[in-house]
Amino acid sequence: MYFHDKRLQYPVKVTTPDPLFARQLQQAIGGVEGEIRVCLQYFFQAWGNRSPNTKYRDMLLHTATEEIGHIEMLATAVALNLETAPLSLQESTAAANPVVNAVMGGERPRHVVEGMLHKHLLSTGLAAFPGNSDGVPFDGSHVYASGNLAADMFANVAAESTGRVLAVRLYNAAHDPGMKDMLSFLIARDTMHQQQWLAVIEELGGYGEQLPIPNSFDQNLEKKEFSYAFFGHDKDGTPPPAGRFTQGPSLDGKGQFKPLQSE
Amino acid sequence: MYFHDKRLQYPVKVTTPDPLFARQLQQAIGGVEGEIRVCLQYFFQAWGNRSPNTKYRDMLLHTATEEIGHIEMLATAVALNLETAPLSLQESTAAANPVVNAVMGGERPRHVVEGMLHKHLLSTGLAAFPGNSDGVPFDGSHVYASGNLAADMFANVAAESTGRVLAVRLYNAAHDPGMKDMLSFLIARDTMHQQQWLAVIEELGGYGEQLPIPNSFDQNLEKKEFSYAFFGHDKDGTPPPAGRFTQGPSLDGKGQFKPLQSE
Amino acid sequence: MYFHDKRLQYPVKVTTPDPLFARQLQQAIGGVEGEIRVCLQYFFQAWGNRSPNTKYRDMLLHTATEEIGHIEMLATAVALNLETAPLSLQESTAAANPVVNAVMGGERPRHVVEGMLHKHLLSTGLAAFPGNSDGVPFDGSHVYASGNLAADMFANVAAESTGRVLAVRLYNAAHDPGMKDMLSFLIARDTMHQQQWLAVIEELGGYGEQLPIPNSFDQNLEKKEFSYAFFGHDKDGTPPPAGRFTQGPSLDGKGQFKPLQSE
Amino acid sequence: MYFHDKRLQYPVKVTTPDPLFARQLQQAIGGVEGEIRVCLQYFFQAWGNRSPNTKYRDMLLHTATEEIGHIEMLATAVALNLETAPLSLQESTAAANPVVNAVMGGERPRHVVEGMLHKHLLSTGLAAFPGNSDGVPFDGSHVYASGNLAADMFANVAAESTGRVLAVRLYNAAHDPGMKDMLSFLIARDTMHQQQWLAVIEELGGYGEQLPIPNSFDQNLEKKEFSYAFFGHDKDGTPPPAGRFTQGPSLDGKGQFKPLQSE
Amino acid sequence: MYFHDKRLQYPVKVTTPDPLFARQLQQAIGGVEGEIRVCLQYFFQAWGNRSPNTKYRDMLLHTATEEIGHIEMLATAVALNLETAPLSLQESTAAANPVVNAVMGGERPRHVVEGMLHKHLLSTGLAAFPGNSDGVPFDGSHVYASGNLAADMFANVAAESTGRVLAVRLYNAAHDPGMKDMLSFLIARDTMHQQQWLAVIEELGGYGEQLPIPNSFDQNLEKKEFSYAFFGHDKDGTPPPAGRFTQGPSLDGKGQFKPLQSE
Amino acid sequence: MYFHDKRLQYPVKVTTPDPLFARQLQQAIGGVEGEIRVCLQYFFQAWGNRSPNTKYRDMLLHTATEEIGHIEMLATAVALNLETAPLSLQESTAAANPVVNAVMGGERPRHVVEGMLHKHLLSTGLAAFPGNSDGVPFDGSHVYASGNLAADMFANVAAESTGRVLAVRLYNAAHDPGMKDMLSFLIARDTMHQQQWLAVIEELGGYGEQLPIPNSFDQNLEKKEFSYAFFGHDKDGTPPPAGRFTQGPSLDGKGQFKPLQSE
Ligand SMILES: [Ca+2]
Ligand SMILES: [Ca+2]
Ligand SMILES: [Ca+2]
Ligand SMILES: [Ca+2]
Ligand SMILES: [Ca+2]
Ligand SMILES: [Ca+2]
Repeated sequence: MYFHDKRLQYPVKVTTPDPLFARQLQQAIGGVEGEIRVCLQYFFQAWGNRSPNTKYRDMLLHTATEEIGHIEMLATAVALNLETAPLSLQESTAAANPVVNAVMGGERPRHVVEGMLHKHLLSTGLAAFPGNSDGVPFDGSHVYASGNLAADMFANVAAESTGRVLAVRLYNAAHDPGMKDMLSFLIARDTMHQQQWLAVIEELGGYGEQLPIPNSFDQNLEKKEFSYAFFGHDKDGTPPPAGRFTQGPSLDGKGQFKPLQSE
Repeated sequence: MYFHDKRLQYPVKVTTPDPLFARQLQQAIGGVEGEIRVCLQYFFQAWGNRSPNTKYRDMLLHTATEEIGHIEMLATAVALNLETAPLSLQESTAAANPVVNAVMGGERPRHVVEGMLHKHLLSTGLAAFPGNSDGVPFDGSHVYASGNLAADMFANVAAESTGRVLAVRLYNAAHDPGMKDMLSFLIARDTMHQQQWLAVIEELGGYGEQLPIPNSFDQNLEKKEFSYAFFGHDKDGTPPPAGRFTQGPSLDGKGQFKPLQSE
Repeated sequence: MYFHDKRLQYPVKVTTPDPLFARQLQQAIGGVEGEIRVCLQYFFQAWGNRSPNTKYRDMLLHTATEEIGHIEMLATAVALNLETAPLSLQESTAAANPVVNAVMGGERPRHVVEGMLHKHLLSTGLAAFPGNSDGVPFDGSHVYASGNLAADMFANVAAESTGRVLAVRLYNAAHDPGMKDMLSFLIARDTMHQQQWLAVIEELGGYGEQLPIPNSFDQNLEKKEFSYAFFGHDKDGTPPPAGRFTQGPSLDGKGQFKPLQSE
Repeated sequence: MYFHDKRLQYPVKVTTPDPLFARQLQQAIGGVEGEIRVCLQYFFQAWGNRSPNTKYRDMLLHTATEEIGHIEMLATAVALNLETAPLSLQESTAAANPVVNAVMGGERPRHVVEGMLHKHLLSTGLAAFPGNSDGVPFDGSHVYASGNLAADMFANVAAESTGRVLAVRLYNAAHDPGMKDMLSFLIARDTMHQQQWLAVIEELGGYGEQLPIPNSFDQNLEKKEFSYAFFGHDKDGTPPPAGRFTQGPSLDGKGQFKPLQSE
Repeated sequence: MYFHDKRLQYPVKVTTPDPLFARQLQQAIGGVEGEIRVCLQYFFQAWGNRSPNTKYRDMLLHTATEEIGHIEMLATAVALNLETAPLSLQESTAAANPVVNAVMGGERPRHVVEGMLHKHLLSTGLAAFPGNSDGVPFDGSHVYASGNLAADMFANVAAESTGRVLAVRLYNAAHDPGMKDMLSFLIARDTMHQQQWLAVIEELGGYGEQLPIPNSFDQNLEKKEFSYAFFGHDKDGTPPPAGRFTQGPSLDGKGQFKPLQSE
Repeated sequence: MYFHDKRLQYPVKVTTPDPLFARQLQQAIGGVEGEIRVCLQYFFQAWGNRSPNTKYRDMLLHTATEEIGHIEMLATAVALNLETAPLSLQESTAAANPVVNAVMGGERPRHVVEGMLHKHLLSTGLAAFPGNSDGVPFDGSHVYASGNLAADMFANVAAESTGRVLAVRLYNAAHDPGMKDMLSFLIARDTMHQQQWLAVIEELGGYGEQLPIPNSFDQNLEKKEFSYAFFGHDKDGTPPPAGRFTQGPSLDGKGQFKPLQSE
C-alpha cells in the first residue's frame, strides 16, 4: 500500500522556461533509461520475489517507491519548462488569448515550435507524458524482472548506468540553474543506485559465487570447452585483439580464458 | 514524494493456484483497462494540473497513489497463482528439481503449459509483468492526460468503466474464493472511481457548463448548422434510426438534435 | 458493404502550404485522439453488437462511415500543406528538379525541414500517413470496444472530447483560412458526437440505470463498504480535499459518498 | 465521403462456432497480411496521389472501399465463432448465467479457453478487435504508401500475395462450411487484387519502363558496375548458385547479370 | 555461421558533418524501407526454406549477408555526420568540454539541435541506433517471410523498391560528396536486388505459373465469378475508370478482366 | 563487411519435433533476452565506438558476428520443431494434403494447435520469425548502445545473464536430446559472454576507476550528501533492512553507505 506527501523529494525550480529542454527531460521520464522504467522494474522485481527472507524484496520496495518521486520531479520540471500560464486558457478562442497564440506559432519564434515535441503542444496541454524525447511512448517490455536476483541486479546496474549517463548529458545541456540543481540531486541518487545493486551481488558472494548466472545450473551440463573461449570471427583468420578476455583466469575463478578461431 | 507500507491495501489469498488465471489477471495489470494505466493516467493528470486551486490535483494524487496498491495486489495474485515453490529452484538442473520439471511440461498436464503465457514460464520466473493477458507489453500511449479537466474526467470514467467490466469478467471466471474476495474489493473501488470522476463534472456545472468540451471555444466559430445534426450515411438514403440523438434538445441545452442525410 | 463518393464531406482548401501544419494535422489522423481511432472504434463496436434490436449497431455504423470521410479530409489537407508540385518529380535527379531540391533542404529555409516529420520527406512522398504528429504509427490497441454498451459510450465521449480539444488547438494554431474553415466543420461534428453518445446513456435510463458499469453485476457481491468511499492516501493523514466526491448521495443514487483514510 | 449498406458484401454464416477459429480469423483482420492493412494502404495511396489524371487515385478508392467490407465480413465471422448468446448477459453475476460460466472456463472444456485469445474473453466481450491472431494490435506502420506508384503497386501485390496465402491456410484450417464459403469469396478477391496491381505496372510500360524503381533517377549517377551484379558472400569464395539472377539480360533490359565475389 | 572483415563493403566518407542528415540516414537503417528490415527478411526467408534444392536458400543467404554490410555502412555514416570529436568526452563536466557544450545547445546554432533526433543527443552518444528518422524503433513485424517463395519474392521487390525510392530521396537531399558517393553505391545495389527477386519469379515460370499466389490452391474452390472482376464502389454507380484491370486477359492467363458494380 | 559459411556454428538436430517447444525457442530469438537483441546491440556499440584504439570495437564485432550464427541455429531449431514435411505443400488444397490438414487442426491433437503461436501456423509457413514466445515482434528499442563503454558493458552483462537464465529454462523444458545438446552449447557461450564484458570493466580499472558511470562527471557537482545514502520510504519510518548497501565503504571506494529516512 502506498502514501504520498505533497512535497517533492527535492525542490524543482525553473527560472527561464525552455520548451526544448522540456522535450529533453522526457527521455528521463519515459525513455529506456528513464524513471518510469526503473520504478516499475524495481516494483515488479519486488512483487515477484518469493524468498522467505524478505530483505531484498523490502529493499527493492524502498527504492521503487523513491523512484515514483523522481518521475514526479521530472514531470513537474517538464510542465514548468513548457508554460507558466494557466492551462485553462489554452483551448480558448485564439483571438482572446495572446499567450496561446504565442505558443502555437505566433509571437514565439517559429523555430521553437519546430523543435518541440508536438505531443506537448497538441495532446497534453503543455505537460509531461509517459514517453521519450522523440515522442515514442513508454513500453513495458523494458521492465526487466527475470526472477533471478543476480541477473536482475545487473539489469538494475545497467539501467542506473545509462540513466546516470543520460542525467549527466541533461546536466550539461541545461542552462537553467534550477534544472542543474535538480539534476545534481538525481545524479547523486543514480550514483547510489548503481552502488546498491552491486552491493547485493557482493553480499551474495560476489562474482565467484554468483557467476555464471544463473549459478544453479550444473556446469558439467554445458559444453565447457567453449565456456571460457573468445571466438574470433575474422574472415581471414586474423586473431581477435588480445585482452583480459583472451587470457588469464576467468572472473568467476572457474576457467581460463583463451582465444579460439572460428573456421 | 511517496511512501510504502508493507501491508497490501486488501488481503490477497490463493488456495488453488491456477496458471491460466494468472494469465487472465495480467489484463488487469497491464491491459488497456488495467491498473498501470489508470495509475499513470491519474499521476500525469495531476502533475500537469496548473490550477491555482489544487483541489483536483490533490484528489488525483490520492487516487493515483491508491492505484499503485492495486497493481501490487494483482501482481501478488499473479505470483500466487503461478507457483508456491521457491523461485530459486527454477533454473536448477532439471534432474534434481521435480518441481521445475513439472511446471515446464513434465508432471503437470501439458495442456496447462499450452494455455499459459510463455513470458510467465520463460522470462519472469513465474511472476507478474507489465503486460496484458496475451503477452503484449503495457504501452504508455494509453495514458490520457489532455490538459483539459473535463476531457480527462470522461477518459477516467471510460477507463474505470472498462476496468470494472474486466474485473467483473475476472470475478465470473474465478474459481478460487480468495480471488473472488480480492476482486469484490477491486470492483467496489471501480464503482467509486466511476462515481468520483463524474462527480467532478457535476461539481463543475455539469453537462450544461462543460459541454461541448472544451467549453472555452466560441461556438460561433464552429459550423453550427452541423453541431447537433446526426448524419445518415446509408447508401440508399434510408434514414438513421430515430433516437434521443435525432430529436429533442441537446444535452448541453445549446441546440436541437436533428437527422441529416449525407448526399 | 461500403461505397464512396468522390466529393469530400466538406471542402478542403489551402492557400499557403505549411509543412509544419501538415505535421500537426497528423495528430488528428493517427494520434490517439484522431479520426482513424474513432472510425475503427465505432466500426468494431458496431460489428460486435449482437443486440436483436439493431438500433445502436446501425447508429454506430452511420457515424463510423462518416469518420472515414474525416480521415479523407485530413489526409487531403496534409497533402495540400506539404506540396503543390507534381509528386512524380520527387525522386528525379536533383539537378533537374529545383522543386525537389527546395523541399529537401535547398532553397526552402533549412529550419522548415528541421521542424518537419521526416516520414513526410522520406517515406510518403509528401503525403499523409497513419501516424501521429511525432511520427509514431497508429496503434490498434486504442480501439476501445468492450462489448458493454455504456462503457463504450463513455469511451466514445472521451475520444470525442480529447478529439475536439485537439481540433480546437489546431484551429488556434492554424493561419490559413481554408484550414480554419475545415476545422470549424470538424469541431462542429465533434460537438455532435460528444452529444450523441451521452444521449444514448440518457436513453438507456441515465446514470441511475447504467451505473455502476456494468450494471448487470449484483452489487451485493462487491465489498459495498468501499463502493462509495474516497480513500485518502496522504502520508500524514491529512484528509483529502472535500468535494462532491466526499459527501452527498452518489450519482447513481445507490450510495452515499464519504471520505476514508488509508492507514 | 462514404456510405454504407447494411448488407455484407458476401454472406457470412457459421454453423458450429469455434473460438479457436475466431482467433485464427483475427490474422486476416489485424495481421500484417490482413484487411485493415490493405484498406488503409489503398486509401492512403489514393489520398496522397496528386496526378492530374485521377485514374489510379479513383481505382485505389474503389478497392479501398471494398476492403472495408472485407474487414466487416471477418469481424462478423469472428463474433459468430465466439458466441451466439446475447452479449448483454456476459458481465452478469456468474451464478445466474450458465452460458457465461461455460465460456469462462466452466462447462466448456477448459482447453478451449486455453487456446483462445484472452482479449476475446476479457476485453472485447467476445467480438473481433483490430489485432492479429496472437493478440498483437494492428500497427499503422504497415501501411505502405511511398508516393511512388510503381513501388506502391509492388507493395500491394506483396500484401495481396501474403494475404491470399493466409486466406488459403484459413480455408484449409476451416471445418465449418459457412467459413469455407466466405473464404472462397475472399480468396477470389485476392486473386483479382494481385492481378489488378500488376496490370497497372503493365499499363505503365511494364518492367522495361518502370524498373529500376524509381525510374526517374538518372542511372548514370549510380555505381553502374554494381547495378546488375550478384554478390557472393561465401567465406571461402564458393560462388553463389547459378540462376537467372547471375546470367543473361536483366529484366529491365538495361544490363547484364553477372556474379561477383566479395573479397 | 558468419565472419566479418574490418573493411566496409564500400568506403564511407563525410567531409562536412550534418546532424540533420544523420537523422535522415536513420530511415535507411531502421525505417520500414531500411537495411535491418531487408537483412532480417532475407535471413528468415532463408532459414525457413526447407526445399531439398538449396538454391534459393543459398541465394538468400548471400544477399542477407551483404545487407549486414549495408547497415554497417549507414551506421558509420550516421556517426560521421554526428560528430568527429572523441566520444569519451561527451559526458564530462560541461565547463571543461567546449565540444560537448556546443553540441548540446551552446555554440552550435540552436536550430540544429531542434532538428535533431534527441535519441542521438541523449541516448546513443552521437551514434546510430536501430530506429527510423523520427526516432521510432525498428519493429520486427516488418520482416515478411511467409513460407511461400513467390509471395516472399514480391515482398522483397516491394522492400527494395521503396528502399531505392528512399535512397534516391536521400541522394537528392545530400550535400556532402562522400554521402552522394556512398548512396550511389547503395542505389546500384537496390537496382540489382529489385532485379534478382523478379528473376526468381521468371525462373519459376513467371506470372503464368506462379499466379495467383499461392499457386497450389485449386481455383475451382474459389468463387471464380469474382476472381477477375474489378468491383466499382461508387455510391451513384459511376463505373470505375477503364484500364488494363477492367478488360482483356488477366496476367496469369486464367481469366478475363471485367468491371462489376457493387449494388 | 560480412561473410557466411553454410555450416552452423554448432550442429542442430531434432529427433521429435514439438511445436510447443518451437514456440518457446522464439523467446531466445526475438525476446528481450534473445539473440537478435544481443547481435544488434554489439553491432551498434561497435559501429558507434570512435576510440582511436579499436580494441573494444573489434572485440564487439567478433562477438556480434558470432551472434548472427546463434540466431541462425535457433531459427533452424524452430523450423525443425515445427515440421519436417515439405513446406511447398502447405497451401495446397486441403483434401489432397493430409499433412497440412493434420497441422491445421485435423489429425494432430487439437490441443497442440491451441498451444501454438498462430503466427507459426498462419504467417510464417511453420518457420521462425523475429518475435518472442508470445508472438510479440522484436523491438529495436531494446538495443542498448549508450556511447559510454562501461554502461554498455553492464548492459551486455545484463543481457547475457537474463539470456543464460532463459537458455537454462529452455534446457530444463527440453525433452529432445538434440535440443539439450544445442542449448548446452549456447549456455556455454552465454557463460563466456558474461565473463568477457566484466573482463573489460576489470581491464579498465574495475569499479574503483569506472564507478560511478559515467566516470567523467565531476562528483563535486552532484549532491554528494545523497550519493551513498539508502533512502527508506516506509510510511511509518521503519528503517530499511540493513545490508551491504546501508553500511561500510561504497564499492567505488569514494563514499560510505548510510541509511537515511525520507520524511
Ligand atoms: Ca531515479
Ligand atoms: Ca483500480
Ligand atoms: Ca471525427
Ligand atoms: Ca481483401
Ligand atoms: Ca541494401
Ligand atoms: Ca548468444
